[in-house]
This record gives sequence, structure tokens and C-alpha cells, in this order.
Amino acid sequence: MDNDDLRRGLSTCHKKFSEATAILAGDALLTHAFNIISQPEQVFKIYPDTQTRIKLISRISWAAGIKGMVEGQMLDMQSYQSEQRDNLTHLKKIHALKTGKMITVSVEAGAISVDADTETIEKLIIYAGKIGLAFQVADDILNIEGDPKIMGKAAGSDALNDKMTFPAIIGLAESKKYAKKLIDDAIETISQFDEKAVPLRAIANYIINRDH
Amino acid sequence: MDNDDLRRGLSTCHKKFSEATAILAGDALLTHAFNIISQPEQVFKIYPDTQTRIKLISRISWAAGIKGMVEGQMLDMQSYQSEQRDNLTHLKKIHALKTGKMITVSVEAGAISVDADTETIEKLIIYAGKIGLAFQVADDILNIEGDPKIMGKAAGSDALNDKMTFPAIIGLAESKKYAKKLIDDAIETISQFDEKAVPLRAIANYIINRDH
Repeated sequence: MDNDDLRRGLSTCHKKFSEATAILAGDALLTHAFNIISQPEQVFKIYPDTQTRIKLISRISWAAGIKGMVEGQMLDMQSYQSEQRDNLTHLKKIHALKTGKMITVSVEAGAISVDADTETIEKLIIYAGKIGLAFQVADDILNIEGDPKIMGKAAGSDALNDKMTFPAIIGLAESKKYAKKLIDDAIETISQFDEKAVPLRAIANYIINRDH
Repeated sequence: MDNDDLRRGLSTCHKKFSEATAILAGDALLTHAFNIISQPEQVFKIYPDTQTRIKLISRISWAAGIKGMVEGQMLDMQSYQSEQRDNLTHLKKIHALKTGKMITVSVEAGAISVDADTETIEKLIIYAGKIGLAFQVADDILNIEGDPKIMGKAAGSDALNDKMTFPAIIGLAESKKYAKKLIDDAIETISQFDEKAVPLRAIANYIINRDH
């Protein structure tokens, strides 16, 4: 939908094959995810009970659908004509839905699968929401400062396309501060977790230190 | 994907709104279906147990996905360049996947929901496969003989678009015979069902007697 030719150094699906193929690949992957969760024993050695599978399908279909990723993408497409182009709250809403919901449910699904307690799940959801938003702020920064060779796509395309971004609204320096604060808050949220949470802390730090 | 402006007398989604909106509407509906099945009590008064919900999700995601509707649509898109353009078996395969699988699983899902026995489910699947194929043959015939005012779209568009159809391969008269035989076979398959199957017989007959 953003009509980019490249993603991570490779041709995008609609460029390499066709628009119809890209649309159908999306439909197929969205649909097949639920097929796998309904019969995980065909793919994985360890898998949750029936009640947990239903809960995972319920949460993931909500995050991906009309009140999640799809709504976020729709708002993003509409943002070019929106009166809220300079509204930071609106931009946060777009990203909380477009990428945040899927990142959050990815973390939540792991916790649900091992029957974690409610307090743990709540903390993980807050953690994931913050790293999800930081991921998008970092993306916006990389689009300005990133090395096209490492990124695998042209830099500066957001500005050229007049895209609604964090640097465009609050500036580059404030965007960097904001991303750092989100990551600090995310790590603080899970501060009482033991050493098994080391990978979660590493992922949080990676998000704002990556170069692509 | 067929780029039609009209469907049943109304503007198609991509014409009325935008291509992005149409793609996202498809993604949203595909995804939300599984959300509803996972929590049917939010929508319906009667709903199946957890085990049955999982079975429904498994069967419906299979029928809609990479080995069902999506594969059929992909084969249909490729058929314009296919060496099998005149191959009746290939055309049947396309339609068995593209529309047949969803019609079949719609019938099967009802039977699964009320915990029908295996023999009954097998007969219903055969019935549904035959009416599904007949539906497509009838569509191809209507595209030639239908009244555009009643159809809500232009007639003759298949031939104009050089589309792979039953009349194009076996002729109009043979197509009509074939549709009739499929419906007769479908009704024969459920001949031992009692009067509760009257609507199934009515649906079968409607498929080849409809005018749009």
C-alpha cells in the first residue's frame, strides 16, 4: 500500500510478482495463522490445550483485525488527507494499532500459552505496548538517518512522501529522547522479573540501537 | 482482482472507496470471522463448545486459505497465461477451490456444529461440492444469457475478458446439461435425508434456476 519497491533489500511482493499475488499472499498468511493455531500439533512438538488455543485465536484475531492492525493501516492511509496530520496523539493511536497491537499480542500469546498469572500478563502487555511504539519512532528516525545500504531501502522516503512521522511533528532530537524514554519505561515495567526476562530487556534495547 | 466496476448492481468496493480500502476490508473480514467463531457468545445465542469451535476454525481456515479459496483465486489469475486454458479438468479444479471449498465448508460447518455423524457429513460434503461447481457453471451461463438489468453487471464480460469458462470450453448447450446433471446428482446424494433436507433440495434447484 505504500508502493515501496524494496523491503530489507529485497523486491516487495507486488513488484516481484504482481499486486494480485501480494494481496492473496496476505490473505493466505492471515488465514493460515489460525489454521496452525487450531492444529498446532501438526507443526510444533509442544502445544496448548483446546481452551488456550481458543483464547489465542480470540486475542490474535482481535489484534490483527478491524480494531487492530487493519484499523491502524486504514488510519495510516487516511492520514495523508487528515486534519489531524500534526496531532501527536493521533499518530500514537495509528502506531499503537498498526504495529503495536501485533507486537503486544505476540508477547501476550507466549504468556497465555504457559498460563501466566494476570499480573504478569498485564505487565507484559504494558512492556510490549511501549517497545512497539518505540519500534515505530525508531523506524521514523532510521528513515532519516539510516544507511540505505544497510536498510535495504532508500532513506528519506517518508519526507518525500509527506508521511506523518514523529520527527515531522516533534523534531528529530525530541523523537530520539521519546524513543529512549519508552524503552526505559518498558524495562522498568518488568524490573521485578528475574533473569528469565533478560531476552525481553535485550529486545527492548535492540529496538532503538538497531541500524535497520 | 477482476477489476469489475459493478457487483449485483452496486459499485465494487475498490471503485467506491479505494484499492487499499478494498484490500483491508478483505483482510478485516477474513480475520474477524475467526474472532467471532472463537467467541460466538458475543454474537449468537446458541453456540458450540470449545472443541467444536476449534474444529470449525480448522476447517474454515483450511477452506479459505492456501489450499482453498486463495489457491483457487491464484490459479484463476494465472489461467490467462496458462497452457491449460482449454483443459476442463483444470477449470473444474479452479472452481472446486475458488468457490467450491467455501460452499462445502459452509454446509459442513452446520453439520459439525450439531455433531452430525460421519456418514451424514460425508454426504453433505459431496452434495455441497456438486452444487458449488453447478453454481459456477450457472454463473458462466448467466454471463452469456443473463439480463444485465437483473444481474446488476454487464453481460458478456467473460468473453470480452477472454476468461476461462465452461461455455468457452464445452459450449453453452453442454454447459447447461452439465449444470443440470450436477444438481440432479447433488439431490440424489441426499435422497435418504428426511423432510428436514427440503431447504437443501430447494437451494440446489435455485442455483441453476436463478436469474442473477
